[in-house]
Amino acid sequence: MALRVGVVGGGQLARMMIAPAVELGVELRVLAEEPGMAAALAATAVGDYRDADTVLAFARDVDVVTFDHEHVPQDVLRALVDAGVAVHPGPDALRFAQDKLLMRARLDELGMPQPDWAAVADATGLQAFLDAHGGRAVVKTPRGGYDGKGVRVVSSAAEAEDWFTALAEDARGGELLVEELVDFTRELAQQVARRPSGDLRSYPVVETVQRDGVCAEVIAPAPHAADRLVEVARGIGEAIATGLGVTGMLAVELFETSDHRLLVNELAMRPHNSGHWSQDGAVTGQFEQHLRAVLDLPLGDTRPREPWSVMVNILGGPAQGGLEERFAAALDAHPAAKVHTYGKSPRPGRKVGHVTVAGAHLDDVVYESRAAAAHFLE
Amino acid sequence: MALRVGVVGGGQLARMMIAPAVELGVELRVLAEEPGMAAALAATAVGDYRDADTVLAFARDVDVVTFDHEHVPQDVLRALVDAGVAVHPGPDALRFAQDKLLMRARLDELGMPQPDWAAVADATGLQAFLDAHGGRAVVKTPRGGYDGKGVRVVSSAAEAEDWFTALAEDARGGELLVEELVDFTRELAQQVARRPSGDLRSYPVVETVQRDGVCAEVIAPAPHAADRLVEVARGIGEAIATGLGVTGMLAVELFETSDHRLLVNELAMRPHNSGHWSQDGAVTGQFEQHLRAVLDLPLGDTRPREPWSVMVNILGGPAQGGLEERFAAALDAHPAAKVHTYGKSPRPGRKVGHVTVAGAHLDDVVYESRAAAAHFLE
Repeated sequence: MALRVGVVGGGQLARMMIAPAVELGVELRVLAEEPGMAAALAATAVGDYRDADTVLAFARDVDVVTFDHEHVPQDVLRALVDAGVAVHPGPDALRFAQDKLLMRARLDELGMPQPDWAAVADATGLQAFLDAHGGRAVVKTPRGGYDGKGVRVVSSAAEAEDWFTALAEDARGGELLVEELVDFTRELAQQVARRPSGDLRSYPVVETVQRDGVCAEVIAPAPHAADRLVEVARGIGEAIATGLGVTGMLAVELFETSDHRLLVNELAMRPHNSGHWSQDGAVTGQFEQHLRAVLDLPLGDTRPREPWSVMVNILGGPAQGGLEERFAAALDAHPAAKVHTYGKSPRPGRKVGHVTVAGAHLDDVVYESRAAAAHFLE
Repeated sequence: MALRVGVVGGGQLARMMIAPAVELGVELRVLAEEPGMAAALAATAVGDYRDADTVLAFARDVDVVTFDHEHVPQDVLRALVDAGVAVHPGPDALRFAQDKLLMRARLDELGMPQPDWAAVADATGLQAFLDAHGGRAVVKTPRGGYDGKGVRVVSSAAEAEDWFTALAEDARGGELLVEELVDFTRELAQQVARRPSGDLRSYPVVETVQRDGVCAEVIAPAPHAADRLVEVARGIGEAIATGLGVTGMLAVELFETSDHRLLVNELAMRPHNSGHWSQDGAVTGQFEQHLRAVLDLPLGDTRPREPWSVMVNILGGPAQGGLEERFAAALDAHPAAKVHTYGKSPRPGRKVGHVTVAGAHLDDVVYESRAAAAHFLE
């Protein structure tokens, strides 16, 4: 009888677990939000992940439940645990991914380097933070944001007025997170896999390039990274994975500051866009590693197979027609490119696929990956 | 609308097309012989591949039909072509994989190096061939053999008596193939992908190790292969792909003789066990390449990602329990091993999975792959 992993959520992260599941011999079952999603091939149920009965019914015939996203409510997660279901990552870890104020407070307790931050309940509190930090700051809604949503750079408290109003109307009440605007030179990401039994495996730290708050490119490993920086990034990733009790894949988004410090920006407790390079570029891709971790199987080697890998997202897709209409031109011009598409309809700004290229020379790899991805745009 | 490939046959070769299909964004549909086969996840139909109506109905909604095996009868293949279905490889190519006498005759026409061979209709003819070739030879049934089945080394015509009797009773009649027993030092395999439009891409020639007529191990690329040998192997592969009009993946099994010639042993017109290393070890794995070729998409780079790859078959599987019960021990001891299982029940001699390891040092890679595979036996 195959090992069975149930994934809540039918998006591209669930989709990209299908390939390693089939190859290793794991039975993947997906609870999709609706029919025809990216992970439809493995969807054995369609339903609302906010409904405990729906998720409990889905969980009945699997060995472990894991996630395509971090939005399953705590009460649903607790109901799974109470019913004896193995849930990875579990609710105690996921709450730190679900609530950025909890996350900031916990990272402070763990001594992790972070931007200055505060919880602000009203315009007065926000203005005080702004006054103390040069008049500009980043305001975030603690819950529900992703890909730049729920994040706003403000230079006056009035610019967050609508969020304060929304909070006042939210039964859960609460505060906004405000963070100093970090003077960073680049963004990095550190991925760590952790098993329930505690074993860890870290990936090489990578450089991520964001455009409009969305990940556009990843270079693995991060170029020009001093050994000490690589060590510090890994130490931060492993301390957070252990300190927050994360199981499965963890991604820690980091700022590298102009004075060469690393500060924790965001966390993700699932396979992450910053790790898509590893599907083709590492001995063990992040999607296989996530399956192994949540099944509490021994973790795989995270060594890169080639000196450099570059991942370029296909954002939006073609203005006309489907991605498959561009295959011929893209593959013809770039025989070493690995093209991944998610079975999603093109739409401006939407992540509909990605391209990776690996090789010995970074300049070539950057060129090839960008040029191949460009075939799928406009 | 995704590109749609229909695969006739639900075995492990169809299964291993699922991962690259999902990643690239090709919709794979499988006509399986029965429910619960290795490729069950992608099975959209279950039925008899010898029945033209069944296969025609399956083919109606796909862009191209390809195969998990070479056993679809010519009349069924012709019915597909007559109905306007794109079929790759097509019947004109597949007949050379289905009938070894046709294959030998055609390879002679193409000037390919082969063992001495003859078509023999009775014991007298076989005895004459034996007398002319030192008293021993290989007798093969022209149709239906694989993995050592339908192949017999004989030193007297009487040892093939039952096959002659069967031939006499077979409505198709016919002759047996007899081949000289080649004094080979090792076996090699050359894989070539060919598009309907004619473009070719060759993989590096590999060394294959057979046990009891079944592929046990593959080393890629073939060690100690002189540049000239690599060139000759590639030339043979490409000449056969073109000469026989193969579309999709072609594998040419070769003998390397003690006097350093290459002789063609067998052909396979599909992804082949000798190419499983490429899933993890080459920029473009053979299953992705096959999909690209049959869709007439540009072919991918066949460069190895690491200097050496070794593939070891899991033959038979554990004496007790399922393969998944051995994951923990195998993955723990061999974090760089890529374990592939086929969702098949263990049974003596059955191919139920394989392990590949890639790396810079051949001795290490051989050791790791064999040791990892051994966890799944006994």
